[in-house]
Amino acid sequence: MPYIVPQKDMLFTLEHVANLSQVFAELNIDLDAETVAGVLDEAAKLNQDIVAPTNRTGDLQPSYLKDGKVITSPGFKEAFQAYTQGGWQGLSHPEEVGGQGLPKLLATACSEMLNSSNLSFALCTLLTDGAIEALLTAGSDEMKQQYIPRMISGEWTGSMNLTEPQAGSDLALVRSRAEPQADGSYKVFGTKIFITYGDHDLADNIVHLVLARTPTAPEGIKGISLFVVPKILVNADGSLGAPNDVACLSLEHKLGIKASPTAVLQFGDHGGATGYLVGEENRGLEYMFIMMNAARFSVGIQGLAVMETAYQMARDYAAERLQSRPVDGSAREAVAIIHHPDVKRMLLTMKATIEGCRAMSYYTAGLSDIAHHHADAATREAALAQYEFMVPLVKGFNTEQSVDITSVGVQIHGGMGFIEETGAAQFHRDSRILPIYEGTTAIQANDLIGRKTLRDGGAVALAFADQIDATAAELAGHDALKSMVQPLSDANHAYRNVVAHVLAHTKTNPNNVFAGSVLYLKLAGMLMAGWHSARAALAAQSLLSSGTDVAFLQGKIGTAQFYMQHVLPQTGALAKAILDGGEAVAGFDVALF
Amino acid sequence: MPYIVPQKDMLFTLEHVANLSQVFAELNIDLDAETVAGVLDEAAKLNQDIVAPTNRTGDLQPSYLKDGKVITSPGFKEAFQAYTQGGWQGLSHPEEVGGQGLPKLLATACSEMLNSSNLSFALCTLLTDGAIEALLTAGSDEMKQQYIPRMISGEWTGSMNLTEPQAGSDLALVRSRAEPQADGSYKVFGTKIFITYGDHDLADNIVHLVLARTPTAPEGIKGISLFVVPKILVNADGSLGAPNDVACLSLEHKLGIKASPTAVLQFGDHGGATGYLVGEENRGLEYMFIMMNAARFSVGIQGLAVMETAYQMARDYAAERLQSRPVDGSAREAVAIIHHPDVKRMLLTMKATIEGCRAMSYYTAGLSDIAHHHADAATREAALAQYEFMVPLVKGFNTEQSVDITSVGVQIHGGMGFIEETGAAQFHRDSRILPIYEGTTAIQANDLIGRKTLRDGGAVALAFADQIDATAAELAGHDALKSMVQPLSDANHAYRNVVAHVLAHTKTNPNNVFAGSVLYLKLAGMLMAGWHSARAALAAQSLLSSGTDVAFLQGKIGTAQFYMQHVLPQTGALAKAILDGGEAVAGFDVALF
Repeated sequence: MPYIVPQKDMLFTLEHVANLSQVFAELNIDLDAETVAGVLDEAAKLNQDIVAPTNRTGDLQPSYLKDGKVITSPGFKEAFQAYTQGGWQGLSHPEEVGGQGLPKLLATACSEMLNSSNLSFALCTLLTDGAIEALLTAGSDEMKQQYIPRMISGEWTGSMNLTEPQAGSDLALVRSRAEPQADGSYKVFGTKIFITYGDHDLADNIVHLVLARTPTAPEGIKGISLFVVPKILVNADGSLGAPNDVACLSLEHKLGIKASPTAVLQFGDHGGATGYLVGEENRGLEYMFIMMNAARFSVGIQGLAVMETAYQMARDYAAERLQSRPVDGSAREAVAIIHHPDVKRMLLTMKATIEGCRAMSYYTAGLSDIAHHHADAATREAALAQYEFMVPLVKGFNTEQSVDITSVGVQIHGGMGFIEETGAAQFHRDSRILPIYEGTTAIQANDLIGRKTLRDGGAVALAFADQIDATAAELAGHDALKSMVQPLSDANHAYRNVVAHVLAHTKTNPNNVFAGSVLYLKLAGMLMAGWHSARAALAAQSLLSSGTDVAFLQGKIGTAQFYMQHVLPQTGALAKAILDGGEAVAGFDVALF
Repeated sequence: MPYIVPQKDMLFTLEHVANLSQVFAELNIDLDAETVAGVLDEAAKLNQDIVAPTNRTGDLQPSYLKDGKVITSPGFKEAFQAYTQGGWQGLSHPEEVGGQGLPKLLATACSEMLNSSNLSFALCTLLTDGAIEALLTAGSDEMKQQYIPRMISGEWTGSMNLTEPQAGSDLALVRSRAEPQADGSYKVFGTKIFITYGDHDLADNIVHLVLARTPTAPEGIKGISLFVVPKILVNADGSLGAPNDVACLSLEHKLGIKASPTAVLQFGDHGGATGYLVGEENRGLEYMFIMMNAARFSVGIQGLAVMETAYQMARDYAAERLQSRPVDGSAREAVAIIHHPDVKRMLLTMKATIEGCRAMSYYTAGLSDIAHHHADAATREAALAQYEFMVPLVKGFNTEQSVDITSVGVQIHGGMGFIEETGAAQFHRDSRILPIYEGTTAIQANDLIGRKTLRDGGAVALAFADQIDATAAELAGHDALKSMVQPLSDANHAYRNVVAHVLAHTKTNPNNVFAGSVLYLKLAGMLMAGWHSARAALAAQSLLSSGTDVAFLQGKIGTAQFYMQHVLPQTGALAKAILDGGEAVAGFDVALF
């Protein structure tokens, strides 16, 4: 079963949920519908034909370390060349550094395709995007010119070196150190672990961005600086010089994304790795956090992407596998299992979750475009606040769901799902890292509570609730949709209660509130995905009268209906656990575990 | 981190939830508390010292096929010898065939230990138990004497050959055939897949039990017979003769339980495999179903068992891993993550689910003992009906939870959870087969609706609801427990509504009701586990006054409290989806997927 890009749903969601035409008009982006469809078409071809076929082989023949160098899986080099030569690495980066400057809305759909095709492969481009963002945020003009165009062209790639054995979620514990040299450079020393594409053979050089402490740095998070440490030193004329003092010690054996090399990198075992300070000293974490919203959003798209591929495989299997007569007695022979109610329920669970997450994610991408490119500062600021509120939800909710939904994909296959040759299990294994890296779900939830809910007194959180009430009111005006009103309103009510609880009690009883932090994230993400599913249903309902694409539009409405009836009620259970169950956690003595 | 048998909780649950003393007294079983504890002690030693160390190695060095024979993982032979020589294979089988005739209550705790130690290894003994049960149910006296004592002694093992490529959940599609011979034996022909321990090197012979059709058999499920087909033919004097016509063609590459060989067996490619009819012709599926309740219960115990090991590993990691300061500002340095509210919540989710599932499972084992051994026929019959109602819940709920709970175990480890060396991922991979084999969750749910709820007009289902109301009333009498009343009563109310819905609408609108079949199973399982958790809390509360084991007893109460506040509210969401969401599934046109 080859992956087929769900272009129709992508285009529908871009236009009718993320309001693409309207956003582009406001931002004076001169891209008509045909151009947008054309870009998706080109991306679809590349991903379906060249990237997707590397997915299974990559899992069977993971990258490996040989004589200190990483050899990537078969087909990865060719795919990387096709990807970078087609200009896709620069899709959303500014034109002045060699990018194409396309809106994030469009880039997000392309990113979904790439990640559906091969999560392991896509990670190389994702990390390079991260390095580019970090340099754009804090690098000098010289750095930008020196590194970014070559990362966009695919000559070089980027890597992010944050984690150390004792410092994972808690970057305050970073111990790597950087000693200033007479020439203004630094010597960098330390061990970094879990470095995605920390070494590989896809490009001539790797631009490592490394967190480390200078000798005079204060303790804790306020003493961490960001350095660029190229794998191969770059001469003044831009040509490659001697190898830097960076060694790839080992690769991890992982549950999934096996083709993606996860390296232990040793900096400075032979006198010190040459590095260059990015931005100002001791502001490294701050730069990281700016960049991290983009990276976290991208991981959320990975969650969406892997669910889509798992769904397609499960759906196709269910349509072919004959087993058992229908429960309603409508046939005397075994039928395709897609007709059995529980298989339908499972497929709808997958489809409704995917479409809800896609709707929420694309809408969020549109907020980012407005936040970064609108002419009006107040509009930018408002959109930025909304975007930043949504990022932990896109990251946290999409990725948590991806683990469950790929598991449902396995279940639909029955015994075949447990056999690796089928491929369904790979998606589940691959997905399992998504709620962990770039900040675990708990870290996203802390961000949601601290920076995104408390800091503005719940203003953004509750403004969303008002918008959702408005959508509910709109639904009430359509006979075909009004059964959605109650579940959406109930979920929104639960959300309001939880936001009020967070605002009221975090200061006085933090242990109680944080016991429900991830539950709050799930509730909010579930609601947002449901809200945008409802908006999609409203759009579909009004398009139905045109008489075209009727089946597709009815599918959108039926899928949203399922989301309201089967998924949204869970918000009530989450709210109860948050509101009533904080003490059951906070009051439990850890000695009793 | 070695697996430590949770003997204290096992003994507590046996005595105070499953009413061991009372059950033993009623059945005239002469085992005092010391003997029970002694058996658990012996089992714990064997499993901790000999079986558990084979778990990781088995995953790293799975069984493999060489020259048509399966070589098992290192240490498996030694473990199998120790297990069978210790008499553990015969623990619950009748004394007249060489077993020890111990009650299922006790055997269940021992089975949990074995499965916690190594799911892959335990499967060999589980399938042998199944074969023994099938022969006890339907075999001739001669067959019983010929095969069972040697399966109990470990000289031989058993295997169950049901599945064929076109016949998985739907055994009506079985095509293997058996041709009667002049001497009363049969020649068996066909391909069987997914045969657990279909070949191996742990014993001298394998007693394959095979479903096949005789030439005159009617179509469908009423034309399937059961045959015993030994791997090596047995001479009249009981010695081993020539190899039978059974070939192991290949082993599957699986997501988990890699050490357990899953074989494709070919019967009869060289003239026909010699087989012997078990019981009467065309009654094979009937015998299987009698046996299957035992096998399904055992898989439920596998679900419980793997959760326990995953929990122990996650708890120990959380107690050691230092990361981040506490959210309440109570320390200025990074603390062990077990102190962070979300990690506590995750650990409590694991612990509460495990203790609930253990309570429900052991209670069910006690029902089986009464059902099979009580002197009074009416008492036996009533207990059998309750036991059979519980089997799909123990199988379905425990195993569905095991996938989620082992995933939580991975999450607690953060990035380390994704690294295979850690071991947390193995539990998650291993668990993924549990809701699939011995009948998927949907098959369990069909059984719950059809045979277990509709057939008696909901009598057993609703009698449980009455017992739960009585427990709620008891909780109300204790200040420390009365906060549990509302969640338990709400969940019971949701359950009653769903049972009424199933009773009222299955005939008239089966598609609608079966769209919620798995949700009904989850709701009922969640409630039963909660009910027995509440009963455990009541017992703990009354024991508290004795002043011994106070921490343990408080842990029981706190854990049950968490179950009520965090887990049980999900029953409300499930009931809503069942009652309101049937049409969203039934009415969805499969062409729209």
